[in-house]
Amino acid sequence: MIKAALGIDIGGTNTDFAFIDREGKVLVEDRISTKGFKEVEVFLGALNEKIRLACKRLPGRMEVIGIGVGAPMGNINKGTIEHAADLPWKGVIPLAEMMGKYTDIPILVTNDANAAAVGELIYGGAKGMKNFAVITLGTGLGSGIVTDGKLLYGQDGFAGELGHTTVRPGRTNRECGCGRVGCLETYVSATGIKRTMFKILADSIEESELRNICYRDMTSLHISEAAEKGDKLAIMAYEHTGEMLGLKLADLVAHTNPEAIFLFGGLTLSKGLILEPTQKSFEEGLLSIYKGKVKLLPSQLNSTNAAVLGASALAWDIYEKTLSK
Amino acid sequence: MIKAALGIDIGGTNTDFAFIDREGKVLVEDRISTKGFKEVEVFLGALNEKIRLACKRLPGRMEVIGIGVGAPMGNINKGTIEHAADLPWKGVIPLAEMMGKYTDIPILVTNDANAAAVGELIYGGAKGMKNFAVITLGTGLGSGIVTDGKLLYGQDGFAGELGHTTVRPGRTNRECGCGRVGCLETYVSATGIKRTMFKILADSIEESELRNICYRDMTSLHISEAAEKGDKLAIMAYEHTGEMLGLKLADLVAHTNPEAIFLFGGLTLSKGLILEPTQKSFEEGLLSIYKGKVKLLPSQLNSTNAAVLGASALAWDIYEKTLSK
Repeated sequence: MIKAALGIDIGGTNTDFAFIDREGKVLVEDRISTKGFKEVEVFLGALNEKIRLACKRLPGRMEVIGIGVGAPMGNINKGTIEHAADLPWKGVIPLAEMMGKYTDIPILVTNDANAAAVGELIYGGAKGMKNFAVITLGTGLGSGIVTDGKLLYGQDGFAGELGHTTVRPGRTNRECGCGRVGCLETYVSATGIKRTMFKILADSIEESELRNICYRDMTSLHISEAAEKGDKLAIMAYEHTGEMLGLKLADLVAHTNPEAIFLFGGLTLSKGLILEPTQKSFEEGLLSIYKGKVKLLPSQLNSTNAAVLGASALAWDIYEKTLSK
Repeated sequence: MIKAALGIDIGGTNTDFAFIDREGKVLVEDRISTKGFKEVEVFLGALNEKIRLACKRLPGRMEVIGIGVGAPMGNINKGTIEHAADLPWKGVIPLAEMMGKYTDIPILVTNDANAAAVGELIYGGAKGMKNFAVITLGTGLGSGIVTDGKLLYGQDGFAGELGHTTVRPGRTNRECGCGRVGCLETYVSATGIKRTMFKILADSIEESELRNICYRDMTSLHISEAAEKGDKLAIMAYEHTGEMLGLKLADLVAHTNPEAIFLFGGLTLSKGLILEPTQKSFEEGLLSIYKGKVKLLPSQLNSTNAAVLGASALAWDIYEKTLSK
């Protein structure tokens, strides 16, 4: 009988899921809208039916060894989603408990970046590593930290919120959606690089095709395309973003001394643009005992379904740790 | 038979040691000069004899369950001291291996701040805690981080070097002895507050008795005494120091989500002066999910022999973990 894990990625718009084998191969996958469901109970009922239908398309009989769920503000200690701004359901949702009505299979809930870190460990570039971190660069900046072979959760399950470390102290700096000022993700994320781009467009008198795009319309894709065509200001925006990221990754090393840091997500797809300035600022910022020892790498996960892969990896990770006890 | 651990604290000037029982009671203690020994082999021979003599003063027969050594740049993974700037012996010293010639008792080597963290766990305010950090404020700033009940070491044994995270980016900021610029310990340490004091004396035209003391002579004690007498500029120096510390402790929380952070060392003795501004800046800097959940506390270790206590606690910690397996 084939063994598989069920990975579920709950996003603000859609929820993707897939049955995935130990090698990371997707056996069956599908999705359901998240946005359409005002009540989480109704959403879970619909999701359960959708999964049941997907099961019929499986190539043969299958043993599901576990269910991993990645969700914004997912708390692994409690199996909850807590005050997730991007989901339609408010407050604390006891997700694992609620899903437990439908199945006896073990259910784990964590946030997207932690799931990405376990995905990197089980299927990606971190295979065999004991100490590493994954930085996810999307609309915001997420992070998952693995120390001594295990995800770092901390006291309340919320370790690894590097997007909300301070890169620029002082009250006059960039406002963050979290209510703080000068957060790393206000500089280093798809939104952050756009803000930097607008600052540069304001400060410089150099010509740039990006002067034709309004704030609401501009995406990080416009900036990477301009940079690849040689737009000086767009290149500056990438340099500035990489410089900030490298500096804070050096801080991360001074906290947890990892063997490698993986960069994941849309902003990292144009690899040289972001990796080169990040690498330079990172190596400059490292304390001498760490210099040359910490690898900065692009994620090895296939990004089309990486969140689902990561969620399923969580289930595989726990399954194998239980077996080896 | 009484059980005791031998704690050894190797400092740049002296090496202190003590036999300590499980309750943290010092049974016998003594010290030997470190500075006087150019060869580490000769130092260890002398230390061994000094310990043998001290044994004779013990109240009864004793089982030594382990030896813990705290030393600058002590690496627990390898039992080495690596390139410690403040010790007379250069390069990588295989300390545990060299000490093993004299005894079969298990020997552990780590750095001072990690030893302080285990001391807090075994004898101090962190009893029963799983996730916390200790910040040691002396000439520099050290840190030891405990996650999931264990010291966080990272890949090379050098996790927790918060003194060398960046508080002020940019090449024009304060030079650090480590070769970097803008390190936390250039602001938050006995030396850091003195540098801040001199900056304030330069910027302000306010009168202060500290204008009579030259840089070489001034210590953090002068500043705390002046602040306690109401010297406005000295109070400002403490406020500024606490503000910087609080900000970076909020970053620490975003990395490891601890239950508590303990402040230890000379600079924290005048408690209100440093704790109050630190607390304020810390709470302001915390992301909402952490607010009100992380305690900022003065260390509960007796600071006169805390380093030796911490070193011995390391031995107790490992001993008990081995027993419980």
